[in-house]
Amino acid sequence: MPDIQVAPERRPGRPRSVVADEAILDAATDAFIELGWDGLTIEGVAARAGVGKTTIYRRYPSRLDLLLAAAERLVQQKGPVPDTGTLRGDVLALVRAYFDMLMSTRAGRATPAMVAATSRNPELAIAYRSFIAERRRESAMTLDRAISRGELPADVDHHLVLDLLVAPLFYRAFVSREPLDDEYFADLVDSVLRAVRS
Amino acid sequence: MPDIQVAPERRPGRPRSVVADEAILDAATDAFIELGWDGLTIEGVAARAGVGKTTIYRRYPSRLDLLLAAAERLVQQKGPVPDTGTLRGDVLALVRAYFDMLMSTRAGRATPAMVAATSRNPELAIAYRSFIAERRRESAMTLDRAISRGELPADVDHHLVLDLLVAPLFYRAFVSREPLDDEYFADLVDSVLRAVRS
Repeated sequence: MPDIQVAPERRPGRPRSVVADEAILDAATDAFIELGWDGLTIEGVAARAGVGKTTIYRRYPSRLDLLLAAAERLVQQKGPVPDTGTLRGDVLALVRAYFDMLMSTRAGRATPAMVAATSRNPELAIAYRSFIAERRRESAMTLDRAISRGELPADVDHHLVLDLLVAPLFYRAFVSREPLDDEYFADLVDSVLRAVRS
Repeated sequence: MPDIQVAPERRPGRPRSVVADEAILDAATDAFIELGWDGLTIEGVAARAGVGKTTIYRRYPSRLDLLLAAAERLVQQKGPVPDTGTLRGDVLALVRAYFDMLMSTRAGRATPAMVAATSRNPELAIAYRSFIAERRRESAMTLDRAISRGELPADVDHHLVLDLLVAPLFYRAFVSREPLDDEYFADLVDSVLRAVRS
C-alpha cells in the first residue's frame, strides 16, 4: 500500500483544511478499491491520509458519509456532458467518456467494489442509487437536446436509451471482459439509434 | 451464518462422496456471497460443509479451483435455453430467465462478489471470462435459430445483440437499481429487435 503516510501535495494559498479533506477522500477511495466496504475503516483511512481519526470523524460521522463524500469528489473530477450538435456525435462522446471513466479513473476502479458493497448493504445501495440517478439526469440532457432538434421522438424513454448505451460497456468491462474499442462503440451507438430514432 | 455445521441432506442411494461434494460447493458459494474472495478460505468452507480440510484439498487444490467448481455447479441448476418458435418469444424468455437468475438464485447473489473479485484477481478474471463465454454460446443458439428462420440477418453480431439484451438487466439489478418488470422487459426486447431485425 504505497499511499500510506504520503503527505498530500500542498499548493501555495490552499487552506490546510481543504488539503486535508482531499487527502482523506482520496485515501478513502483507495482503501475502498483495495479492500472493499468491509476493509474501509476510519482508522485505516486516517493512517493513509496522515491525519488523526478525530479529524475524519469531525467531517464524516460514519463510514457511509465518508464513502459518499469520496464518490462526490470523484464525480467533480469528470468533464462536462458532451454537446457536439448531433445526437450521434453526442452519444458517441458519451459512450467514450463513460468507457474512459470505467477504465482509467479512480471512479471506475472503485465501481466493482461498489457493486459488491451495495449488494450487501441496503443503506449504501439507496445512497448509491440516488448518486447514479443524479449522474443520469446530466446524461439525459443529451437526449433532451436531440428531442428539441427533432432527432428523437418526444416520448422516448430516456432511461431505456441510457441503459442501452451504458450498460453494455459496464458489462464488457466488468463481467464478460470482451474487447471494448472504437468499432464496438460505433456498432453500439448505431444499433441504439436504429432502435429509438423517430 | 446459519449454514455452518448443518449436515447436507442425504437422499437414499446417493454416494457419500457426491453428497459431500455438493455440501462443499454450496458452502463455498455461500462463503463467497457473504465474504467475497478475500473471505473464501478452505478452512471456513470446511467448517460450513462439516468436512475436514483435507477432504476439500483432495478435490480442489486451490481456492480458485473450488470457486470455479462452485460456479459450474450453479450453472447446472439452470434451465434449458428457450425455444418458443419465434425470435421475440425466445429473447423475451431469455431476458426473463436471466432476470430470475440474477434476482432469485445463488448464482445471482454471487455475481456482485464475482464482479469485485475478478477486478482484483487477473487469474480469476480469465477463468470467469471463459465461464461467461460458454454461457453465451448457449444463448447465441437462440439467435442462430432466428437466422435460420429468416428473422435476423445472417451477419448479425451475436455478441452485440446479447449485450443489448442482458447488460441492461445486469446494470439495473446491481448498479442503477431502477425497477425491472415485465413492461421494461418488453420495451427492451422490442427496442433491440428494431435495432437488429432484417
